[in-house]
Amino acid sequence: MRLRNKPWAEDFIKSNADIAIPNPESIKGNWDTVFNNDHPLHIEVGTGKGQFITGMALANPHINYIGIEMYGSVIVSAIENAIHAGKPSNLKLLNVDGAKLQEFFAKGDVDRVYLNFSDPWPKKRHAKRRLTHANFLKLYEDVLIDQGEIHFKTDNRGLFEFSLVSMSHYGMLLNNVSLDLHAEMPEDNIMTEYEEKFSAKGQPIYRLEAQFQTK
Amino acid sequence: MRLRNKPWAEDFIKSNADIAIPNPESIKGNWDTVFNNDHPLHIEVGTGKGQFITGMALANPHINYIGIEMYGSVIVSAIENAIHAGKPSNLKLLNVDGAKLQEFFAKGDVDRVYLNFSDPWPKKRHAKRRLTHANFLKLYEDVLIDQGEIHFKTDNRGLFEFSLVSMSHYGMLLNNVSLDLHAEMPEDNIMTEYEEKFSAKGQPIYRLEAQFQTK
Repeated sequence: MRLRNKPWAEDFIKSNADIAIPNPESIKGNWDTVFNNDHPLHIEVGTGKGQFITGMALANPHINYIGIEMYGSVIVSAIENAIHAGKPSNLKLLNVDGAKLQEFFAKGDVDRVYLNFSDPWPKKRHAKRRLTHANFLKLYEDVLIDQGEIHFKTDNRGLFEFSLVSMSHYGMLLNNVSLDLHAEMPEDNIMTEYEEKFSAKGQPIYRLEAQFQTK
Repeated sequence: MRLRNKPWAEDFIKSNADIAIPNPESIKGNWDTVFNNDHPLHIEVGTGKGQFITGMALANPHINYIGIEMYGSVIVSAIENAIHAGKPSNLKLLNVDGAKLQEFFAKGDVDRVYLNFSDPWPKKRHAKRRLTHANFLKLYEDVLIDQGEIHFKTDNRGLFEFSLVSMSHYGMLLNNVSLDLHAEMPEDNIMTEYEEKFSAKGQPIYRLEAQFQTK
């Protein structure tokens, strides 16, 4: 994602602390207190401008959602999106690095992880930065419930091929794999900004669900 | 594959017993004696008209190949293909049902299984007939060496999606997955008849390698 210089971003994030939670480290293991209920918690790592997570929050009021985005200049748009949507009470955002998930979530805090149109990092030497690399799968496993799931979609063929192999070698079970999501669009598919752009060009969107196995 | 009525097929197969091995049950566990060497044995289940297996046999003289095709009217073309190629000594054909592999091969007889453009059996109630259904994976495992591999390609999206899930749930490791084989064509790719036809239409060819794990 292209990052514009937004010096006002930090102030804007701070002034919207009801949506973009400050000091999430202090809430680790106690996310129920933020949402005032014990509904399942689904997080999106790399939430971008927030179209997906906001759409999901509006569509599923009995699930709590947290969108995680490390770039302040980008999460600003996600905050604006959430405000525009009337600040759904089941939606929060975190301006933190997804590689540090364990600092914010205890084992079992999270019921599902969404990855949407993650940066493909196409160069081989950057493979460890891909959000479906084994190192990241370990992170997700460390905060998810037992047999928790990752729901992943992307337009990037190379990243999807890599992810299938990576998840299989991690011992995850693959479910509901689609190699052309829009050919048989599920009614409940909430599109991301990227998804709209790429599917409009006729490119296939790849999707899978992967489940951790009890060890 | 459309099957023409070929009443002469049975006679033709019998008269080419040097290529299309009769009574393979009697050779189970002793395929070295047929090839007069102990080279690795790769089999293709559903070999069709034999373009792939013949091409592979010519390209890899130090590997033995057996093409398995249950339809007599189809294997006739594979025999003709083998004759036209000069009857490579490392190529044999079996006119038998792939669902009975264990009758012809002992555990460890086979070093690799190829599945190419298998019948997709798109209706859900026919899922058990798909050559990547768990029941068939069990068959392959029963004749393969430990950690043996299946190399699979198809143009059929539904069959490939099904296979990824089926193989993952069987506990197989996925490797070298390609969702558009011809976008970065490996030099050693031997095309099947179907592959030529479908890739000429611009349809993606899907490919994967799946490896059994030691239990």
